[in-house]
Amino acid sequence: MSDTKENDLPIGIFDSGVGGLTVLKAIRAELPRENLLYLGDTARLPYGTKSPASIARYAAQATAELQEQGIKLLVVACNTASAVALNALREQMSPLPVIGVVEPGARAAVSARPGGSHLVLATEATVQLGAYRKAIESLDSAATVREKACELLVALAEEGWTDGDIATRIIRRYIDEASGDDFRADSIILGCTHFPLLKGPIQVIASDEVLLVDSASTTAAVVGETLRSSGRLRESDRAGSLRFLATDGATRFARVGGQFLGQPLSYKDIELVDL
Amino acid sequence: MSDTKENDLPIGIFDSGVGGLTVLKAIRAELPRENLLYLGDTARLPYGTKSPASIARYAAQATAELQEQGIKLLVVACNTASAVALNALREQMSPLPVIGVVEPGARAAVSARPGGSHLVLATEATVQLGAYRKAIESLDSAATVREKACELLVALAEEGWTDGDIATRIIRRYIDEASGDDFRADSIILGCTHFPLLKGPIQVIASDEVLLVDSASTTAAVVGETLRSSGRLRESDRAGSLRFLATDGATRFARVGGQFLGQPLSYKDIELVDL
Repeated sequence: MSDTKENDLPIGIFDSGVGGLTVLKAIRAELPRENLLYLGDTARLPYGTKSPASIARYAAQATAELQEQGIKLLVVACNTASAVALNALREQMSPLPVIGVVEPGARAAVSARPGGSHLVLATEATVQLGAYRKAIESLDSAATVREKACELLVALAEEGWTDGDIATRIIRRYIDEASGDDFRADSIILGCTHFPLLKGPIQVIASDEVLLVDSASTTAAVVGETLRSSGRLRESDRAGSLRFLATDGATRFARVGGQFLGQPLSYKDIELVDL
Repeated sequence: MSDTKENDLPIGIFDSGVGGLTVLKAIRAELPRENLLYLGDTARLPYGTKSPASIARYAAQATAELQEQGIKLLVVACNTASAVALNALREQMSPLPVIGVVEPGARAAVSARPGGSHLVLATEATVQLGAYRKAIESLDSAATVREKACELLVALAEEGWTDGDIATRIIRRYIDEASGDDFRADSIILGCTHFPLLKGPIQVIASDEVLLVDSASTTAAVVGETLRSSGRLRESDRAGSLRFLATDGATRFARVGGQFLGQPLSYKDIELVDL
């Protein structure tokens, strides 16, 4: 028998910044009754160019803050933090479940394109750790994986220049640099939570047969499954609550975050915390 | 009579990352006998999108580290930190001198284009604080100033895409957005230490009559003047030493920093410190 009070605890969602709001949005669509507590570590973003040791320390501090607030499940909605620190965060949260975004993304790509060629667009840290490569190869030994660091896409998404000529040229350059006579992608994995905002121009550059894999919806499905199978779904007729924490810059969080969430945010909606 | 031992202390140069190496390079050219100690706060870069409170805290911690190491003068080689925290850092370093990059840049623009129209390309934080506007208007009441936040230029410089079609289009878009029937720049101030790397394409887009103002060389001249007038120049026949401290990612510091310094750096040259 599940504990109603514990089931009312929010799902904690953590990212280095606002990119993880694409994951929050997908969880909201999948599980509208769940209470959601989002933490963006905006004082120290981006994680993607930092060292694994720093990323691990930041992720542990963010998780500790969410534990203190009280959550029933943690979603690491940042590819870089998932790549670096998932196992450590699972120990920290034990026995509560922790779900990263790398494994669901890899699983979605492999099941849609078995034996396929996968191009992973990600941050420098995620690429250096080979996180997607390892996840894909452990699921499908016939798969081919190429990973490409695309730092400018992060800035492009944050600036809101998500279509038009400049976005197209930057994306084309990254994809061209990663491709070649020996590699042509069947799937492109959006290996950073900023990149779903650039789906439009990425799909235009890739041919129609190329599948774009966005971890957000797959991750949301895994969250739903995990809560269901452990009897931890919230039982209520009413929509769940939404709370947003950030470590810096409520105004910028609201402005840029609104683009990721797909709905306006006010700086008054953002609570500042110190990690 | 100056104290030889104290004059041998290095000039401390602090930036959020590697951009300030353009300032170090200019100081090296101006004052080749001085010992230089550079600190890049790479664990928390970029400063340009953070809140003033966080930027001030980070800058104070970086300065304390340099004080502990022992320096005779501090150069705040980061426009954002100069804009936010210069007065506080002057108190912290007192009675030793502190030189920021905003005031020298403003002075150079105003003396070359008296009564002119100045376009400042900078980070979001620098623009929001109106640092260049205030500095220019206090020097020349007839001047017109427009400030434009250009976050993508930071990523562009770090990625090393400093010429070609993509750089040109991004710069043109920012300059077009800032210009109009009511404003045409006589000078463009490179108000972020990353931007001197983009001088080439910026000058191509601006007409030849537009002056590009790079704070690095002006700041170096002010450093030289300050040391000379206070009898604090190092007296030696030998070239000064160079030391590099960073708060994260020696490998990335060496790779990206080499582009800014204009000479190769090895990760072994970078000492990691914890602030």
